[in-house]
Amino acid sequence: MNTLADTGLAVSSQGAFSAKAVIDALCALLPAHCVLFREEDTRPYECDGLSLYRCLPVAVVLPESEPQVQDVMRLCKRMNVPLVARGAGTGLSGGAMPHARGVLLGMSKFNRVKHIDPAACTAVVEPGVRNLAVSEAVAMHGLYYAPDPSSQIACTIGGNVAENSGGVHCLKYGLTVHNVLRVRMVTIEGEIVELGGGAPDAAGLDLLSVFVGSEGMLGIVTEVTVKLVPKPLCAQVVMASFPSVESAGNAVAQIIAAGIIPAGLEMMDRRAVHMVEPFVKAGYDLDAQALLLCESDGTPEEVAHEIARIEAVCRQAGATRCQVSGSEAERLRFWAGRKNAFPAAGRVSPDYYCMDGTIPRRHLGRVLNAIEQMEDEFGLRCANVFHAGDGNLHPLILFDSNKPEEIERADKFGAAILELCVQVGGTVTGEHGVGMEKINQMCVQFSRDELDAFLAVKRAFDPPLLLNPEKVIPTLARCAEYGKMHVHGGEMRFPDLSRF
Amino acid sequence: MNTLADTGLAVSSQGAFSAKAVIDALCALLPAHCVLFREEDTRPYECDGLSLYRCLPVAVVLPESEPQVQDVMRLCKRMNVPLVARGAGTGLSGGAMPHARGVLLGMSKFNRVKHIDPAACTAVVEPGVRNLAVSEAVAMHGLYYAPDPSSQIACTIGGNVAENSGGVHCLKYGLTVHNVLRVRMVTIEGEIVELGGGAPDAAGLDLLSVFVGSEGMLGIVTEVTVKLVPKPLCAQVVMASFPSVESAGNAVAQIIAAGIIPAGLEMMDRRAVHMVEPFVKAGYDLDAQALLLCESDGTPEEVAHEIARIEAVCRQAGATRCQVSGSEAERLRFWAGRKNAFPAAGRVSPDYYCMDGTIPRRHLGRVLNAIEQMEDEFGLRCANVFHAGDGNLHPLILFDSNKPEEIERADKFGAAILELCVQVGGTVTGEHGVGMEKINQMCVQFSRDELDAFLAVKRAFDPPLLLNPEKVIPTLARCAEYGKMHVHGGEMRFPDLSRF
Repeated sequence: MNTLADTGLAVSSQGAFSAKAVIDALCALLPAHCVLFREEDTRPYECDGLSLYRCLPVAVVLPESEPQVQDVMRLCKRMNVPLVARGAGTGLSGGAMPHARGVLLGMSKFNRVKHIDPAACTAVVEPGVRNLAVSEAVAMHGLYYAPDPSSQIACTIGGNVAENSGGVHCLKYGLTVHNVLRVRMVTIEGEIVELGGGAPDAAGLDLLSVFVGSEGMLGIVTEVTVKLVPKPLCAQVVMASFPSVESAGNAVAQIIAAGIIPAGLEMMDRRAVHMVEPFVKAGYDLDAQALLLCESDGTPEEVAHEIARIEAVCRQAGATRCQVSGSEAERLRFWAGRKNAFPAAGRVSPDYYCMDGTIPRRHLGRVLNAIEQMEDEFGLRCANVFHAGDGNLHPLILFDSNKPEEIERADKFGAAILELCVQVGGTVTGEHGVGMEKINQMCVQFSRDELDAFLAVKRAFDPPLLLNPEKVIPTLARCAEYGKMHVHGGEMRFPDLSRF
Repeated sequence: MNTLADTGLAVSSQGAFSAKAVIDALCALLPAHCVLFREEDTRPYECDGLSLYRCLPVAVVLPESEPQVQDVMRLCKRMNVPLVARGAGTGLSGGAMPHARGVLLGMSKFNRVKHIDPAACTAVVEPGVRNLAVSEAVAMHGLYYAPDPSSQIACTIGGNVAENSGGVHCLKYGLTVHNVLRVRMVTIEGEIVELGGGAPDAAGLDLLSVFVGSEGMLGIVTEVTVKLVPKPLCAQVVMASFPSVESAGNAVAQIIAAGIIPAGLEMMDRRAVHMVEPFVKAGYDLDAQALLLCESDGTPEEVAHEIARIEAVCRQAGATRCQVSGSEAERLRFWAGRKNAFPAAGRVSPDYYCMDGTIPRRHLGRVLNAIEQMEDEFGLRCANVFHAGDGNLHPLILFDSNKPEEIERADKFGAAILELCVQVGGTVTGEHGVGMEKINQMCVQFSRDELDAFLAVKRAFDPPLLLNPEKVIPTLARCAEYGKMHVHGGEMRFPDLSRF
């Protein structure tokens, strides 16, 4: 899987390509310690969290200032060299995987918290600041930065902006796009553009929202103004056991229908619980077919009242056991299991492939049954954790990458799950982005006119198509080829859902 | 102010323009009752809520089906005719003002609620459905549609999408963009494109967010899937009087800092209170220098607890009087004053001009003092109502349109207020859009590179620039000309804030 000739938009080749010319030009532009080009130096950058896909870039540049970023952008444009940006490399869809003929732009040296305004509840940070470091920097003011992806210890704000990262608290507090007020970025022409502002509505077109989540295709972030929220005085979690995934799904629907917006609302299936519990010892109920974690935050009175309502709804929906966290330590322990589901998968299987799709909540039971059936079909196990409130699934497919045909089966299993999501009216992403990983499934979800609209907006920012090329938006040729594998009698063939 | 030769992007003229040819082509395309072209028929469409600006279109078309919309779009493209869409015409920035060489596309016949899904809390509606009619249609399920612009009895969902409308409850429940899941639209090529979906994050680029609020520049909406929320069991309002705008502003900051997200948080200054009270008899305190309305909603227990906290914060911030609504009738009466501020202005002045800018909350007192000073400078009175939680100002400039030089002074006064907003770090819009009204101020707020980014995205959707042309995005020539009036020694001249 090392080379991927056609993964999307091809970079046009104007004249012969010379790696040496690119490296020489970069070395003339930046201090020596900012340009890496020997294989032993570029190897650590060959992949992000989607380690199935790897590729060495021509060079890695680590600029230290905005003018240096502008210089690199102008150079890439002049020499027609693809450019891929990278934060901490924790992304799960291959968005930061280098291009074989391109430059990888690492933003790790942009790591300053530049300004904190406690009265306005905002902070201005550079893109290489880690997600958790923002909350740490503002903690003395009783504030924090709400989006909390599982990788928040390591992942950076720049990467969060590129992928529109979420987390277990995004049901109540929103994704990155809802927590970013302004972005300063450099275009492929080397121009500085600021997007967003403080108004509820944006003046002109809301380019901030299209930029957040654009996966490095539109420009390079050099500064981000984030929104901060006051730390709640109190938070508690209800942990509820259910005899079936369906009954847990019903409880989710009824919590939402009751007008409760929990701070977090997560579900795990039996396999996930059994995978996590021996590792984390979170106190999970091993007899449950599905486990629900539902958090309330606010003042102690508000939380007590809301927790009682959540418990009542769960019991009515058929919960066999309900436990409320009695201390902050217990609350964190309940969450530790959910947050460590991925490393726990690594303990029971040599490798795992974390999928990310979204479905209407009412199809939860049906889709999980279908995934169970697919386990037999593809001969691989799958554990399920999900942001239940959003209908966002994270199936973890367990496999062994030392067996090439298991890699292939895992890949096909993942694709089948995503296409199942589309089939029941959902989408191929939840929060991990499209990147390399889901580019084929974009052909399944979108019409050619819709993909053309994406491409037109991409071109509006990046006319030469040099920024993170061959990702996210599939070419016509790719969709045609992918379609051939699937189409029978003119229609895309989906798995037969009537069996479930 | 009837003709505005250069208000932005000019429509290129390919060959001679013939109104008759356009009308003939439209009549050949649509049933006779769907095409209006006599002056007495098109006159009612000459302006929207920004009645300072008027213009008759070549024709008004009122299509009845999506294929008819596609046909009209293709015709306009083929004949190079500008096209302006219109909902109910309640917009306040001139977004639906016709183009003198163009077609006005009225969407009033798209008025069906097509589907309600109470379990998923969604509804699929046509763009001509009135905002309030959505809530009425779903009331039996205990649900409602949250965004509530003051014009909600009349304004339509299509217009709400075009302008990204807000309302007094948008602090807690979000603007239109946060309450729309999917939009189906027709491009200038006549293609159907669906934007958005059910996932927390969008697959590919988030074109839904850039489309919502795009003021008719990107395409014509034919169907909208909206999010519904459960009706809260209970709602109460605190009405608090303050001895100064500053102390009321502090109360707002402290409510937000306490982690309270009120369902509504509105402020009125003394002039607005005195304007409204004799008209509405809402029970407002005529001795107050500033009045704050702060609503809490939820279960009765949650509301009782939150209202007590809000009251405590207000008293601590110096409130001289606090009154809590004791019944639903009283709550509605408290709001009636705020919601009728605009008609109340019509009672004390022949005309009023409602501005819309946003500022960082901490500058509230300073900006209001500056506006008061400007009243003398421009010789016009101004009442202030605002969405205080968002820092979104709505100064109401009172004038008499029978005196042409008063129109001119009102226009300049408004421009000065918007530029003051930019100067203190705010923006020229809150929620009413740019339209015709604020196009000059776009030159003040944005750099040329930033305006170019807007234009590039506009072109990505509408290459011939036929959709709502000459609005929102100013041309280089316009900015140069506007700059000449303002620039001294190479810098934009702002009003001197140091006096306040």
